[in-house]
Amino acid sequence: MNQKQTHLDDLIARAGSIVDSARLQTPLAGSITNTVTQGFVANAQIACGGSAAMVYMPDEARELAQASDAFYVNVGTLMPILEQSIPAAMQSLNDQRKAWVLDPVAIGIGGLRTRILTDAKEHRPSIIRCNASEAIALSRLWGLDAGNALEHTRGVDAKDTIEAARSSAVSLASYTHGAVAVSGEVDLVTDGTLVAYCAGGSSLMTKVTGSGCALGGVSAVYCGVANGDLFGAALAGTLAFDVAGSRAQTRADVRGPGSFQAAFLDELFHVSSNDIAPDMVKIEAA
Amino acid sequence: MNQKQTHLDDLIARAGSIVDSARLQTPLAGSITNTVTQGFVANAQIACGGSAAMVYMPDEARELAQASDAFYVNVGTLMPILEQSIPAAMQSLNDQRKAWVLDPVAIGIGGLRTRILTDAKEHRPSIIRCNASEAIALSRLWGLDAGNALEHTRGVDAKDTIEAARSSAVSLASYTHGAVAVSGEVDLVTDGTLVAYCAGGSSLMTKVTGSGCALGGVSAVYCGVANGDLFGAALAGTLAFDVAGSRAQTRADVRGPGSFQAAFLDELFHVSSNDIAPDMVKIEAA
Amino acid sequence: MNQKQTHLDDLIARAGSIVDSARLQTPLAGSITNTVTQGFVANAQIACGGSAAMVYMPDEARELAQASDAFYVNVGTLMPILEQSIPAAMQSLNDQRKAWVLDPVAIGIGGLRTRILTDAKEHRPSIIRCNASEAIALSRLWGLDAGNALEHTRGVDAKDTIEAARSSAVSLASYTHGAVAVSGEVDLVTDGTLVAYCAGGSSLMTKVTGSGCALGGVSAVYCGVANGDLFGAALAGTLAFDVAGSRAQTRADVRGPGSFQAAFLDELFHVSSNDIAPDMVKIEAA
Repeated sequence: MNQKQTHLDDLIARAGSIVDSARLQTPLAGSITNTVTQGFVANAQIACGGSAAMVYMPDEARELAQASDAFYVNVGTLMPILEQSIPAAMQSLNDQRKAWVLDPVAIGIGGLRTRILTDAKEHRPSIIRCNASEAIALSRLWGLDAGNALEHTRGVDAKDTIEAARSSAVSLASYTHGAVAVSGEVDLVTDGTLVAYCAGGSSLMTKVTGSGCALGGVSAVYCGVANGDLFGAALAGTLAFDVAGSRAQTRADVRGPGSFQAAFLDELFHVSSNDIAPDMVKIEAA
Repeated sequence: MNQKQTHLDDLIARAGSIVDSARLQTPLAGSITNTVTQGFVANAQIACGGSAAMVYMPDEARELAQASDAFYVNVGTLMPILEQSIPAAMQSLNDQRKAWVLDPVAIGIGGLRTRILTDAKEHRPSIIRCNASEAIALSRLWGLDAGNALEHTRGVDAKDTIEAARSSAVSLASYTHGAVAVSGEVDLVTDGTLVAYCAGGSSLMTKVTGSGCALGGVSAVYCGVANGDLFGAALAGTLAFDVAGSRAQTRADVRGPGSFQAAFLDELFHVSSNDIAPDMVKIEAA
Repeated sequence: MNQKQTHLDDLIARAGSIVDSARLQTPLAGSITNTVTQGFVANAQIACGGSAAMVYMPDEARELAQASDAFYVNVGTLMPILEQSIPAAMQSLNDQRKAWVLDPVAIGIGGLRTRILTDAKEHRPSIIRCNASEAIALSRLWGLDAGNALEHTRGVDAKDTIEAARSSAVSLASYTHGAVAVSGEVDLVTDGTLVAYCAGGSSLMTKVTGSGCALGGVSAVYCGVANGDLFGAALAGTLAFDVAGSRAQTRADVRGPGSFQAAFLDELFHVSSNDIAPDMVKIEAA
């Protein structure tokens, strides 16, 4: 067995173990996240075994960060109070060396979003969950890649390919010493050293608002039981979503994005380590 | 027929009558409620026959309280403006002697939540809808029970049993002269004199975010047609949810929490007094 | 073929072309919209081929208005910051002569709502999407009809018939030089010259919160590909909803409002010009 296969088997075992641990330990993953998809995020977090709680106030952000096993920050729909609450949460999480997931939704729109995402650099998010365009834009905003961050954004949908975002994702993960998960037709997860490509999922996931946010929230749940294995937690999230998405898409009762969303939550509720196999992943050196 | 059976038959008749009246009268239940579960709350309120409306601004809170037949206050996701709006709503409701439901979600997190829930004491909510840990914490915050309120909270999930919360629930109801509904595997509803234990429901309800919020919102709808029968309204809400949950869980098309949530709303839409029977409830003196 | 039939065939062709164009062009429809139904609105916008993004901050409102192909403003749940953001969006949209849809939800409740809706008059929304009571109230607020706007509102549900709102809808469309879509058992769409009555849909649509908001959001998507054909875009939205609602209602797997909502999104995802036929519409001179 070559080294790559050993790496892969190890990674799959770690991801599977994290998926199962979440069901046993019910980690609390607090969130500051956008209002559009909160219900879906919370339901996905619960479906994979976690406990969800969402806040806006600065002192609540600090307290929830302390009470949580891991945390999720999504800048999708900013409100004035979040100018205080998101930095308070990031500071609290870093002070406690607690894992947290950043979702830089719609990076490039508005001054507050740019300020918060610029500040996030020094707090080194444990996992960055984003689409290809957001990975490129964040890497540029943080000065890790040359180029203009704002070129890559239009609303909330990606206009770049996963391959175009590969070097940005690796740069981000190398900088944070954490993991980066870029969602797309094929998903890319990297810790800056290895790059994992994950197949599966469903094209219907792009037809449900908040699929990416839900993955960010679930990745935070997995961080809560990962004992610092951020690459494993990011991979666990992406693979659990790929399994649930594939299965939901093939269900006879799924006839479009509405029934798909319900079926996806059903299937996420049933995902275990038994469903995660090495043939879902291809790994390469970064 | 003994007195307990007479009490029970009377209670069931009152709850059934309230369930049916809501469909005939379409009461408006305005809400100030958390952003995570607003859609589910509104859909549940509509499914049981009510009309839903939600606001944040202080003057809108006052006006909606005036226009509503009953009101729902849920402190799940506080925002700065709610420091004015929730007291304005509570004052307006009390001035009009209009029934309202309080849901002390995540009591113990943050200063504003504690201030609002402390203030709520003098406004004596008609129904308090909560989980076991929240009942204990609110009773302690209001000085009705000895002990530290904050010991009992961690995010939004209960870590105490229904039995452990029984005396707190009775104390709260005795103080408010209203009703308290504590959700759990078996649900407890009390007016401070009688304690009703309600079976039914589904374990999948704990896997759907906002099941408790939705019950709070529906209890407000039922208050809108209860002519002051707060114990009847609280029991109607809990029993309607137990019926809908049980039925949804046994449906062949329910395969997890996603399809369960849709099925639950379907079944709530069909609940009537015919579905509510004395064998669902056990009553005791408080 | 008489003139009315020519008008009708032309209208149906235009609406069908807009429905198909949205799937090909993926227009971005930014929104400032209420927190209760954001997820449903975004999912409906995506289901009909669009891309969705929602914001609260004033600078984001301006930037999103610039990035969008069309925009949706829904005043359902106002927050303090929206006093700046909604006017900023309206001004930006008008400066760019970009189409936008106004949904005057719950007109009459609160001072800020009245100020924003009063200001909206000078910005002449391209499409007004509302219920019968809201059409009457907005027309009176803008001084186009005699009478008191506030008489017609109670929460978010209509208490007037479509026929009672007809002259108000025509007045509004004549004033804006746009279109007005009034939802009801039969839907009315007018450009101030013609009045189209659209059959179809489902009574279950009134049992799902946000059906009207979702139509507003989808109408904005359609504006994004309509090249200024506002009457066509408004009709496309209403007819797509009527088709999807009718089909969802007859599906064997729909057993109430919960399964209906999922099925509705499924069917909206499949609607094309082939589904829109002249027999769904009756037109009259205004």
